[in-house]
Amino acid sequence: MQYRIGIDLGGTSIKAGVVDEKYKIISSYQKPTLEGFEIVVPDMAETARIAAENAGLILEDFHSVGVGSPGFINPSTGLLVFSNNTNWRNMPLKQELEKHIPVPVFIDNDANCAVVGEMLAGAAKGYRHVLMLTLGTGVGTGLIIDGRLFSGGDSMGAELGHVPIIANGEPCTCGLFGCLEAYASVTALIRQTNEAMAKNPETKMHAHAAKHGGVSGRTSFDCAREGDPVAMRVVDQYCTYLAIGLGGFITVFRPEIVLLGGGLSGAGDTLLVPVRKKVKEYTFASDLIELPPIERAALGNAAGTIGAAFLGDI
Amino acid sequence: MQYRIGIDLGGTSIKAGVVDEKYKIISSYQKPTLEGFEIVVPDMAETARIAAENAGLILEDFHSVGVGSPGFINPSTGLLVFSNNTNWRNMPLKQELEKHIPVPVFIDNDANCAVVGEMLAGAAKGYRHVLMLTLGTGVGTGLIIDGRLFSGGDSMGAELGHVPIIANGEPCTCGLFGCLEAYASVTALIRQTNEAMAKNPETKMHAHAAKHGGVSGRTSFDCAREGDPVAMRVVDQYCTYLAIGLGGFITVFRPEIVLLGGGLSGAGDTLLVPVRKKVKEYTFASDLIELPPIERAALGNAAGTIGAAFLGDI
Repeated sequence: MQYRIGIDLGGTSIKAGVVDEKYKIISSYQKPTLEGFEIVVPDMAETARIAAENAGLILEDFHSVGVGSPGFINPSTGLLVFSNNTNWRNMPLKQELEKHIPVPVFIDNDANCAVVGEMLAGAAKGYRHVLMLTLGTGVGTGLIIDGRLFSGGDSMGAELGHVPIIANGEPCTCGLFGCLEAYASVTALIRQTNEAMAKNPETKMHAHAAKHGGVSGRTSFDCAREGDPVAMRVVDQYCTYLAIGLGGFITVFRPEIVLLGGGLSGAGDTLLVPVRKKVKEYTFASDLIELPPIERAALGNAAGTIGAAFLGDI
Repeated sequence: MQYRIGIDLGGTSIKAGVVDEKYKIISSYQKPTLEGFEIVVPDMAETARIAAENAGLILEDFHSVGVGSPGFINPSTGLLVFSNNTNWRNMPLKQELEKHIPVPVFIDNDANCAVVGEMLAGAAKGYRHVLMLTLGTGVGTGLIIDGRLFSGGDSMGAELGHVPIIANGEPCTCGLFGCLEAYASVTALIRQTNEAMAKNPETKMHAHAAKHGGVSGRTSFDCAREGDPVAMRVVDQYCTYLAIGLGGFITVFRPEIVLLGGGLSGAGDTLLVPVRKKVKEYTFASDLIELPPIERAALGNAAGTIGAAFLGDI
């Protein structure tokens, strides 16, 4: 049997997994993500080596190692062009990893790896045109067209989280204004929740936040589910923002299926039902062309490892 | 020498041209566009037949006939799904044309044909990733990725004129709100010009409009060039809207070059200079990734005929 191996570089931990041909992770290993590029690179290689050993293999047994990393990645050049949380710029991630790993290394954005994982083994299995939005601290996007990752002209595009939905609107971490990420990330939802709480001392969200150690992406969704009218308005407005973004992307890409992943996708139907309804209002020619189903991603964190492991195959 | 033949279906005339291997139109023919699908189809075929005869050829001499049409076209099924100005819906354009034309017919959107023409023979020659916006009554978009037309998952996407730039903003002809087309088409510019004129009786635009038979897409640009401050503000705002749209599309597609075509592109540097400057403010990571040049399309109306003629080749 031909195995693959993938590394998922995260903000808190580096995870590696050996994946079989049925996309099952048969062994894994993880260690904390320390600071500094020159420390992280050998740690990534070591994590992969130990995951391989845990399956009774060595890295030479694999035809390649795949890596998913946060940030702005150029798979063609192997550069990690920019990473927001580490402030790395133009780091030769592929080249440095290949000094520690004896087979070719493929790198891509973590959101791209996640959509590959979902296409191969998750909620998008069998689809050839897939759009996935990862609703976390930011809004990550992975896009598959004709069964292949789509990243625009020079592999640096498809940054859908940074497309404006409201020109000159809310400031975004990227320095622009009005990006989808500034309205549809967990960070944005927390801001929207705080604003509503400040204006509405009667909302149950105050008690929820006190009980759960502060305002989070769950505050408004949990309280909306319990019928709190202020929380319901926050959720409704959030779903509208997300639907506006999705409507534009469907107009552009016409995926066969849309997946929502990341922390917020845990809200399930409280998120999915209104978003499905609203997307129809915000998509071009929705009376003429059937809209794609909008579903929750199925694999959670495993999607990134599985997708990374198969980067060399798609 | 292998010749190609293309038909450009327009609102006022049907044009056909025979194109040589150097992308030169060596013969052509045109007739007015009458009303009714059942009249237009045989007229298109006849236009092609006479254009061929004018070059001493018959339609059987061509391996295919290419057609550019306004509206929402599905090249895979051959359907004209929707055309705004004629109100045609789900018309089998390819199939009906093939009853009158003895070789295979390829159809695509007129803006797609225009960008193919510009890539083969015009301002995008030598580029493999090209975004072209046609600024006319609407905002048409043609997109080439890796040397091929890109139209999303099912050939029905890439309708960039109907991506929102201001959520719930100005109403668009498509029924949505806040689309780029509602801010950056000639129709939108005329609306913006009229609004500014109503508020500013002193602007030179009143005299310009009176002299030129009414407000047009040229009113503000002509008067801005002469230093009229109200006209300059209209042009500045228009260029901002266009730059916001372009910035988002560059973030998504990372084309190697952006072309502006259609009536408004005739404004030349009055349009191009501010748009180039503003796009930098509205594109993700413009400090990290070089922005594509933004140029005026070179071929004018010929682009559509040339591009249509080569639809069977790309």
